[in-house]
Amino acid sequence: MASKESDTGMSPKITGELLRQLRHAMRNCKYFSEPIQAYIVPSGDAHQSEYIAPCDCRREFISGFNGSAGTAIITEQHAVMWTDGRYFLQASQQMDNNWTLMKMGLKETPSQEDWLISVLPENSRVGVDPWIIAADQWKTMSKALSSAGHSLVALQDNLIDVVWIDRPERPSKQLRTLGLEYTGISWHDKITALRAKMTERKITWFVATALDEIAWLFNLRGADIEYNPVFFAYSIVGMNSIRLFVDLKRLQIPAVKEHLQLDSPSKPELNIQTFPYESVYTELQAVCAALSPKDKVWICDKASCALTQVIPKSNRSPIPYTPLCLAKAVKNETEIQGMKVAHIKDAVALCELFAWLEKEIPKSTVTEISCAEKAEEFRSQQKDFIGLSFPTISGVGPNGAIIHYRPLPETNRTLTMNEVYLIDSGAQYIDGTTDVTRTMHFGTPSAFEKECFTYVLKGHIAVSAAIFPNGTKGHLLDSFARAALWESGLDYLHGTGHGVGCFLNVHEGPCGISYKTFADEPLEAGMIVSDEPGYYQEGSFGIRLENVVLVVAAKPKYNYRNRGSLTFEPLTLVPIQVKMMNTELLTQRERDWVNDYHRKCREVVGAELERQGRKQALDWLIRETQPIV
Amino acid sequence: MASKESDTGMSPKITGELLRQLRHAMRNCKYFSEPIQAYIVPSGDAHQSEYIAPCDCRREFISGFNGSAGTAIITEQHAVMWTDGRYFLQASQQMDNNWTLMKMGLKETPSQEDWLISVLPENSRVGVDPWIIAADQWKTMSKALSSAGHSLVALQDNLIDVVWIDRPERPSKQLRTLGLEYTGISWHDKITALRAKMTERKITWFVATALDEIAWLFNLRGADIEYNPVFFAYSIVGMNSIRLFVDLKRLQIPAVKEHLQLDSPSKPELNIQTFPYESVYTELQAVCAALSPKDKVWICDKASCALTQVIPKSNRSPIPYTPLCLAKAVKNETEIQGMKVAHIKDAVALCELFAWLEKEIPKSTVTEISCAEKAEEFRSQQKDFIGLSFPTISGVGPNGAIIHYRPLPETNRTLTMNEVYLIDSGAQYIDGTTDVTRTMHFGTPSAFEKECFTYVLKGHIAVSAAIFPNGTKGHLLDSFARAALWESGLDYLHGTGHGVGCFLNVHEGPCGISYKTFADEPLEAGMIVSDEPGYYQEGSFGIRLENVVLVVAAKPKYNYRNRGSLTFEPLTLVPIQVKMMNTELLTQRERDWVNDYHRKCREVVGAELERQGRKQALDWLIRETQPIV
Repeated sequence: MASKESDTGMSPKITGELLRQLRHAMRNCKYFSEPIQAYIVPSGDAHQSEYIAPCDCRREFISGFNGSAGTAIITEQHAVMWTDGRYFLQASQQMDNNWTLMKMGLKETPSQEDWLISVLPENSRVGVDPWIIAADQWKTMSKALSSAGHSLVALQDNLIDVVWIDRPERPSKQLRTLGLEYTGISWHDKITALRAKMTERKITWFVATALDEIAWLFNLRGADIEYNPVFFAYSIVGMNSIRLFVDLKRLQIPAVKEHLQLDSPSKPELNIQTFPYESVYTELQAVCAALSPKDKVWICDKASCALTQVIPKSNRSPIPYTPLCLAKAVKNETEIQGMKVAHIKDAVALCELFAWLEKEIPKSTVTEISCAEKAEEFRSQQKDFIGLSFPTISGVGPNGAIIHYRPLPETNRTLTMNEVYLIDSGAQYIDGTTDVTRTMHFGTPSAFEKECFTYVLKGHIAVSAAIFPNGTKGHLLDSFARAALWESGLDYLHGTGHGVGCFLNVHEGPCGISYKTFADEPLEAGMIVSDEPGYYQEGSFGIRLENVVLVVAAKPKYNYRNRGSLTFEPLTLVPIQVKMMNTELLTQRERDWVNDYHRKCREVVGAELERQGRKQALDWLIRETQPIV
Repeated sequence: MASKESDTGMSPKITGELLRQLRHAMRNCKYFSEPIQAYIVPSGDAHQSEYIAPCDCRREFISGFNGSAGTAIITEQHAVMWTDGRYFLQASQQMDNNWTLMKMGLKETPSQEDWLISVLPENSRVGVDPWIIAADQWKTMSKALSSAGHSLVALQDNLIDVVWIDRPERPSKQLRTLGLEYTGISWHDKITALRAKMTERKITWFVATALDEIAWLFNLRGADIEYNPVFFAYSIVGMNSIRLFVDLKRLQIPAVKEHLQLDSPSKPELNIQTFPYESVYTELQAVCAALSPKDKVWICDKASCALTQVIPKSNRSPIPYTPLCLAKAVKNETEIQGMKVAHIKDAVALCELFAWLEKEIPKSTVTEISCAEKAEEFRSQQKDFIGLSFPTISGVGPNGAIIHYRPLPETNRTLTMNEVYLIDSGAQYIDGTTDVTRTMHFGTPSAFEKECFTYVLKGHIAVSAAIFPNGTKGHLLDSFARAALWESGLDYLHGTGHGVGCFLNVHEGPCGISYKTFADEPLEAGMIVSDEPGYYQEGSFGIRLENVVLVVAAKPKYNYRNRGSLTFEPLTLVPIQVKMMNTELLTQRERDWVNDYHRKCREVVGAELERQGRKQALDWLIRETQPIV
């Protein structure tokens, strides 16, 4: 879980004047030949990033809503926001009365296309910035609008930027090189593996647009987007050519120059040609101008419409997941080892936090914000800490029920002995990325709170302990996380898990555990995902239990058709509060799982706490990992 | 489960000469302007029926493979068959060496498109009969071929028919009318409801092509396709017009005439205009010629390419499921009552069968075929019996592992005390359709057989007893059926359940329980599906436990967001053999489920056995429904 940072609070942004200006621009022929009747503002940037730099927060700027997912559409009469169940409450609080919220996932909620068709006058023109709409979304939207007599129009000028007078600059922070001790594979070998896949599928060029894929490919990290160690770049790779598009001044640093062998490539085909970030469009045009009819260019179908359409349709080979995305998802031994180390350090920080909380809460001095800050402080004491991997979700009582809540001064509650506390947090270390949620009570939880917690725990265990055949897609495991809640008539309106990068984005494809996706790639050993069922009682409390887990081979009794089996190994090693459990609702196998997990927490994290001389946290760990009976 | 009947045995069909003739036709310019390099032979008929009349069994004719699903592609060099896991064994046994089997669902198996592209010479023409390829399949195939420089070509002459000299005639059996006591709703009301949906979505015409939808709409049944009480027909419905395309001599029967009010329609808009079956193409052309640009025509995206393409693209509104398909799936009170009665009669027949088997098996006189015949005999003694709903799968020992096995003289095994016996059978009664699988041992099963049976039972119970929110799609329940098998490294390569018609097709959409589909419609109260996990030990034994279950409202403790919950109520009431269970592997809740289920079997079916004076079967039932402890 994670939500994007912003300065916008929970009181709604006043948008009347902004919308007036935007509508003026929609009618204003300075920007295009004819007026447009609707303007679509997607969430993303030109790389379809989930987390975006401040200069790209256009949907937030126009609406006030700063959740990580949402699409705004503005017409002459309406301003409408689509978002999913994680954000219903937050969006309704952050947007003023000019806005209508469309709750995605509810049966009665129209799709954006259906809604547009229902409100637009005949032969309408709907505008969008082709750099920030993905090619597949463009296609769906364009088709639906065309069939109803309207048209989707690519506007070269972004209309939000037209009305956004103090828009920040695009960041260009220093690059960090990663050696083999962190990556396990050199960028040369990654390029060679990519080219082998291209040869296998008869592909002549590959266009990389996703920032985490480019960072992974070149074993570089950046800091352009908060929480995500990526940098703004594109890359175009051919069989004898590697082109990297990036703010060139960043490559002047000797370490980066040497890492990329810019002055002395080891082999001609590993020579990286560098270009300014902005020139990707014209360079891709040049590459495409030289294509023969049989040449094929790989580009992700989620890449920007602008860049996708540069490639002639007959040469274009759109793919749902790029070979980099697939290769990156399966962590190698070095990366797995790094992730394990990172999770032990992270657990040390959280043990410190919880031990500290137990002492401090009775004094009524700890708030959601100060607790999140304390968690960051403890993490920052750990080796190779870089920063957080997403803004900490720190919610007391009713705030815990806001799935992607982020405490703000005006919503900030004090941690007490009387309310449930949910903290979902994670960090970037040079050796790995963490993401963990724990739900605690520092007094006496109610029977209902314990009951719900226990159902969520049962769901967490059902996924974590599941054994399933090689080749199984993660979405097939989603219902395991819900069965116990469903049986009591409860549920949660978000997926159960997402892929986690290794010192990269805390959310990554192509695998996950969610009923919403069908096109996820099969799970395989080495993949890393989160397991995070929850339950949210609106206005009262929120529960979520999240571990990051590694897909590993399982060895059950039989081996049907020699397919092999998989299961999960928790990388997160932070005790789950026994006080919140109604252990009578657990089966013996579930109790055994809890005890085994706690034994491992105690052994592995205990040793590290001992080594770091953190006595108070060690005592807390030992107490919290007593076996249940 | 069900497989299509055929006279082809398990020894392969000799196809060398047929393929030579077909390849001659592929090169022969009598049938088209230029030769074709590949010819696709799908399974279906012009209605995309799963079960087809003998005249439509073209894929079987050319290959010998008679499973219910498969696509053949013939090129100059290759003859290749794609089919799924249910049929790997059967297809490999029924096809000779001219054929290559493509095992769908395995990672290494190419799609038809990819395979064609890999083998075809440049600029190839791939032929197909546009009447027997669905519009959505045409689209996918055509797009893939075009992008590789080939073309998909609609051939008016079916090339299989060219080489099939003794092809049977299209059947035209007598129609049966169904009154309100069976249907619960008159065809007038069904037409009115359809038109209301059309109005709601601004649709002017609806083209019905699926045979079961047409039978359901008009409350008529036929017998043109074995096991399926349907008749060859099309219908085109407008706001003031109902056109029915059917062999006209079938409408001469007074009861049918009166039922359809052909001579005296109650209202002008309920006047049915009748046309010969073959004239649907020209009539649809006439309808489309009169369309205004704003008119929209609904047609299922799985309807034939030929008929779909008659509708101008701008007027065409393809839908994955028609409103008839959706309405038909939710059974009304009358239909549910009929289904319950049908299942009680069916259970009486099976209790008789199993009681008889126990006496006869020791004599070694019962074979797979004679047992299937005996089952049919017992069923035929029940009121309103029409026929079987699919060919009985009756498999002893290794034959039970062939998922869609059908016993033939050359494969026929004798039932003994030493092998597992699997029988999957069902019937059509005027009040309902049944489909039930039981797996039995009449001696002492091995520990492994019991273990596997118990895992399958656990999966069956996990689905049957599942409670889940309203709006849940059936595919989300599929993994529940597999969890116990997966945990021991086992699995089965078919879906867990399919929709079941009411005195209609034993397989129907739009709901089911399968990991293979994502686009199924959410389950709702009144839908009826099968629950049939299995396990198949190749060369040794097969296990499947199948009940038909009704979706009903559940009342768990809580009601999150007032969504309501659903669960299943078994309609099938036939004991599950306790001797095959390793009861130690069952949880207390699973044991309770078995005991509750058996108590209901005893009460409901016992009363009917008593009423019918079937003493021996009653004794068997009472013994087989003793509670387990």
